[in-house]
Amino acid sequence: MNKLSGIFPPIPTPLVNGELAVDKLELNISKWNQTGLRGYVVMGSNGEAVFLTHNEKLKLTEAVKKHASPGKLLIAGTGSESIKETISLTNEVAGLGADYALVVTPSYYKSEMNHESFVTYFTMVADAVKIPVILYNVPKFTGVDMQAETVAKLADHPNIAGVKNSTENIRQLFEFATSTPDDFAVLAGTASVLYNGLTSGAAGGIVALANIAPDECVQILRLVESGKLPEALTLQQRMISVNNAVTSQYGVAGLKAAMDMLGYFGGDPRAPLLPLGEREKEVLKLIITKAGLV
Amino acid sequence: MNKLSGIFPPIPTPLVNGELAVDKLELNISKWNQTGLRGYVVMGSNGEAVFLTHNEKLKLTEAVKKHASPGKLLIAGTGSESIKETISLTNEVAGLGADYALVVTPSYYKSEMNHESFVTYFTMVADAVKIPVILYNVPKFTGVDMQAETVAKLADHPNIAGVKNSTENIRQLFEFATSTPDDFAVLAGTASVLYNGLTSGAAGGIVALANIAPDECVQILRLVESGKLPEALTLQQRMISVNNAVTSQYGVAGLKAAMDMLGYFGGDPRAPLLPLGEREKEVLKLIITKAGLV
Amino acid sequence: MNKLSGIFPPIPTPLVNGELAVDKLELNISKWNQTGLRGYVVMGSNGEAVFLTHNEKLKLTEAVKKHASPGKLLIAGTGSESIKETISLTNEVAGLGADYALVVTPSYYKSEMNHESFVTYFTMVADAVKIPVILYNVPKFTGVDMQAETVAKLADHPNIAGVKNSTENIRQLFEFATSTPDDFAVLAGTASVLYNGLTSGAAGGIVALANIAPDECVQILRLVESGKLPEALTLQQRMISVNNAVTSQYGVAGLKAAMDMLGYFGGDPRAPLLPLGEREKEVLKLIITKAGLV
Amino acid sequence: MNKLSGIFPPIPTPLVNGELAVDKLELNISKWNQTGLRGYVVMGSNGEAVFLTHNEKLKLTEAVKKHASPGKLLIAGTGSESIKETISLTNEVAGLGADYALVVTPSYYKSEMNHESFVTYFTMVADAVKIPVILYNVPKFTGVDMQAETVAKLADHPNIAGVKNSTENIRQLFEFATSTPDDFAVLAGTASVLYNGLTSGAAGGIVALANIAPDECVQILRLVESGKLPEALTLQQRMISVNNAVTSQYGVAGLKAAMDMLGYFGGDPRAPLLPLGEREKEVLKLIITKAGLV
Repeated sequence: MNKLSGIFPPIPTPLVNGELAVDKLELNISKWNQTGLRGYVVMGSNGEAVFLTHNEKLKLTEAVKKHASPGKLLIAGTGSESIKETISLTNEVAGLGADYALVVTPSYYKSEMNHESFVTYFTMVADAVKIPVILYNVPKFTGVDMQAETVAKLADHPNIAGVKNSTENIRQLFEFATSTPDDFAVLAGTASVLYNGLTSGAAGGIVALANIAPDECVQILRLVESGKLPEALTLQQRMISVNNAVTSQYGVAGLKAAMDMLGYFGGDPRAPLLPLGEREKEVLKLIITKAGLV
Repeated sequence: MNKLSGIFPPIPTPLVNGELAVDKLELNISKWNQTGLRGYVVMGSNGEAVFLTHNEKLKLTEAVKKHASPGKLLIAGTGSESIKETISLTNEVAGLGADYALVVTPSYYKSEMNHESFVTYFTMVADAVKIPVILYNVPKFTGVDMQAETVAKLADHPNIAGVKNSTENIRQLFEFATSTPDDFAVLAGTASVLYNGLTSGAAGGIVALANIAPDECVQILRLVESGKLPEALTLQQRMISVNNAVTSQYGVAGLKAAMDMLGYFGGDPRAPLLPLGEREKEVLKLIITKAGLV
Repeated sequence: MNKLSGIFPPIPTPLVNGELAVDKLELNISKWNQTGLRGYVVMGSNGEAVFLTHNEKLKLTEAVKKHASPGKLLIAGTGSESIKETISLTNEVAGLGADYALVVTPSYYKSEMNHESFVTYFTMVADAVKIPVILYNVPKFTGVDMQAETVAKLADHPNIAGVKNSTENIRQLFEFATSTPDDFAVLAGTASVLYNGLTSGAAGGIVALANIAPDECVQILRLVESGKLPEALTLQQRMISVNNAVTSQYGVAGLKAAMDMLGYFGGDPRAPLLPLGEREKEVLKLIITKAGLV
Repeated sequence: MNKLSGIFPPIPTPLVNGELAVDKLELNISKWNQTGLRGYVVMGSNGEAVFLTHNEKLKLTEAVKKHASPGKLLIAGTGSESIKETISLTNEVAGLGADYALVVTPSYYKSEMNHESFVTYFTMVADAVKIPVILYNVPKFTGVDMQAETVAKLADHPNIAGVKNSTENIRQLFEFATSTPDDFAVLAGTASVLYNGLTSGAAGGIVALANIAPDECVQILRLVESGKLPEALTLQQRMISVNNAVTSQYGVAGLKAAMDMLGYFGGDPRAPLLPLGEREKEVLKLIITKAGLV
């Protein structure tokens, strides 16, 4: 298998009155299909995976696969605390056409989630699943953080293809990159440091911003690849406020509201996440406008 | 309904070769039935609930109910990020005889878990379930912390009966106690501050230590109730090292190993939690012996 | 020397136009002299010690000693990162009549401040100073936290008389109390857990609230001593909002503003601390009134 | 004044038996004078400034100035909590030939150190001192962190020339760079992200590693300037272990021990910092050797 690379949006899950509305996917995906995005991630953190039932996850994966252009890769978030559930869901989505499984670190028993337990968990999962695993390190949601030696150890597993590092810690990212084989993909997990990740060993990124600014995210990658660093940094800088708005500032609700403003279907998040208020929407609109996205 | 009170052990889930072994429950529960414990908690953090499938949870609840003496209360841990799943599981365990549901705070989207989202979550759950809810605040595992104003607001709901506060923050505990009605039960969540909680408004405790030292935990409660504070503090102090060993130091694996040492069935935890090594077991044995439990 | 006990206010440093105004001390101390306070602490955290020059500290100590009733103890904050400076200042204030030195943990090189470095620091200081040392553990300002084994080790030094524990961690406080000799004084460092500390082994407290509610703080101590626990807890509970206002909510500026409202001289803090705005003063006034202090 | 740029070592303070030994500076500085280092920083965190008396600081500044080649810039760390002391010390070292003052953020009252208090502090200092100020943001020691809006505001002050950002947060660094004028110098504060900082807007670095690997640090800067990014990243990667050893792993004691191993005078740190043990020195030697520095 070729090394994983390129830009992927972790797509929001369309809901109407709190219920899964897969028919709303077609509009979004048809627009993204026309961009340089390398593929799609379903059931990531921005997909509200933790609120979805097992059956909803299958239905969602099937629908995204159906609408994605043939050349687009499909990555499905399948990790949970339970190894059994993770294996089972991964193999089901593999059967529905997912190319990779994005598997978040277990994290409930935080003080016991160390090198040995991470190696145990991911080895047991990777041994048993039919598609390659991408490690998913996201301390802001899990409260645990994988070290470079753990990623390096797991990179030796033939069925572990890469890592998504959803931190702004660039030192950690380039330690992941330099301590793993060349065909192991390190992916930036946030657009706030996409340029910095790409100039430090990352092969691409899975970034929330790519949902609403796919061309700009792809352009940052291409500028770095062609050695135009100042232009890449400038473009990233232009995106920093809007990226902040749809991640740390307003979260999934903000990302969905921004999609609505930009011609996609966004909708509301599922409870207990709450939709943006009117005032917050106005601020968001200003930020988006200032970034030149409308 | 009467106010909830007394001492409850959050019981470990018996596993043999990683598989649920409900036949091992009889030994443990028959011993606990003879103590002053007020009842049992299944599928708490010490029960490795996050590693159990839906069906395993039902089987486990049924088995504990079967072996518990008629007078013992049964509290079942049923919370997850998904409101749908939480309601559904709660109503199923209610049908199996659970008296209360212990519902952990949602926590994945940490920065958005505020007063409003907690109130939304717990209100939606409490409105829809057939047994009373106990709020479960456990920052060391969830990374989020409920404030007194949130607990006070939720205490007004007719189907929310209490809160388990699994922190050592006694200021927070007595704010919970003083800002809620008299029939709302505040329960200490760790034996390290059981005495302090009981002298600051708590009506009881759900504490890991009660699995291996039920008489001592009940005795601390009785000493406080009869005004013998120095004796209660001295007893708590004698338990502090062993409590630490089966919680922060060695976690669930330590609690299970201690049970094996003390005539209960303990066994190993489920992966990715790892069993104690020989050296750790020796240290644990010394701590237990020094505390006078053997 | 007798065991240190009782309630002490860490007194604010009076400033006029940013300059030390020792003449403003007489009013405050004359009022406090008439209460059951056991003595005074100068140059604590509430005394803005970090903003004072060496000479200002000497002048301040001298003035407080002059106005304090003969029976009141004088504790002077003298700790800094530098062992040399700490020893030198301590011996100078001893010459001015200070009875004890309150010495804060060194903290700049946080990751290296461990058991061994704390023992080194405090042993070198205690060996060289003429008055007994009180250890000062205040993680919210220093970012470091002393463990019970460190306090237990240092309690063996003949010139270390006690510890002020400025955390709400009651488990830690009673571990300090139970792991040190009977004549070693553990002092609560915040009124939010004064009752809880006193019922868990503390001999008294050095608490900001004692500046503006000396009678109430002393009363909590007396109620605990006479076994009237519910009354003590109720009184603490009545103080919790005002204590919060003059500590975590509004800090030193809040404490000084409250003093002005209650007939003491408070004044403004030194820059870069900023005085309260009008709106904040109104909120503070309401809180003080509701607590029954006016 | 020209924009500040280039690589600076924050030099350790030579001590013999715990006492300042300025005669040991000559050897070190004569070696550094022959490199491409842009100048020297005295009384930084690696200089154990918090343990030095006022007089020791003056003596040290004078000695470094004396030995530095004429073209080398001299930056003196002069910040403390007290605005008065900071101004006074800064003007004294200015008189001794210091070109810039490195002024650390005040930090004791952490929860009150916000935009407004930082602006107040640095404005009062910069208004009153005779040499330009470099802001020093170092959360690992201070526990406080300056935001981009604060740095942007302060960058407008005519006597504030730059900021040393001692974090690995590259997003923050480029926000500092993009929100300040072109002649405002953003300096990386740790060699672990020197390459990343330089490709994201930094004009240079003040990094502990430059004491023992001046040529390599200067080379990273030159490689970035000439667009040889992969070579720069590779060189940084070769330095990562040794940089870690002389910073987070072993601290100032490690840096001093490494200097002794590499032909400089290092010596021991001042108490309560403790020198490395024999075993730690062996590990350090291995790391230095593996990095190709001997």
